[in-house]
Amino acid sequence: MDIRIKIGLRIKELRKNLSLTQEALAFKADLDKTYVNEVENGKRNISVVNLEKVILALETDIKDFFQATQFSSTN
Amino acid sequence: MDIRIKIGLRIKELRKNLSLTQEALAFKADLDKTYVNEVENGKRNISVVNLEKVILALETDIKDFFQATQFSSTN
Repeated sequence: MDIRIKIGLRIKELRKNLSLTQEALAFKADLDKTYVNEVENGKRNISVVNLEKVILALETDIKDFFQATQFSSTN
Repeated sequence: MDIRIKIGLRIKELRKNLSLTQEALAFKADLDKTYVNEVENGKRNISVVNLEKVILALETDIKDFFQATQFSSTN
């Protein structure tokens, strides 16, 4: 699976855990809501600086963000 | 610490574990050697697609790449 898709799915999962809308997440992360929508749908090749903003807005850290099975080479 | 610095240090650590030069890593990852040098020195805001290329060239996966203490929020 494309890394952009994997990251988008992980963001969506964590966002829903917090009961946030895409718009609320975008506001928390200080990013455009269209951009967040495109990242979540795997359409954007996000940079690490913006990804960190999203991860912090999702109230987690980079280490935990990537602790999902889809980021392991066996998946 | 800036995410770009953290990622650069992690790349350098894993590259040295494999006894690769920056040039050899760049070749394996199909990236420019100047670009790899700048990423390793924390001067580039790398995208996730290029970061995945580097991580694969380092013979690891994304999950393990981010399993370093500097990617935890307590660091």
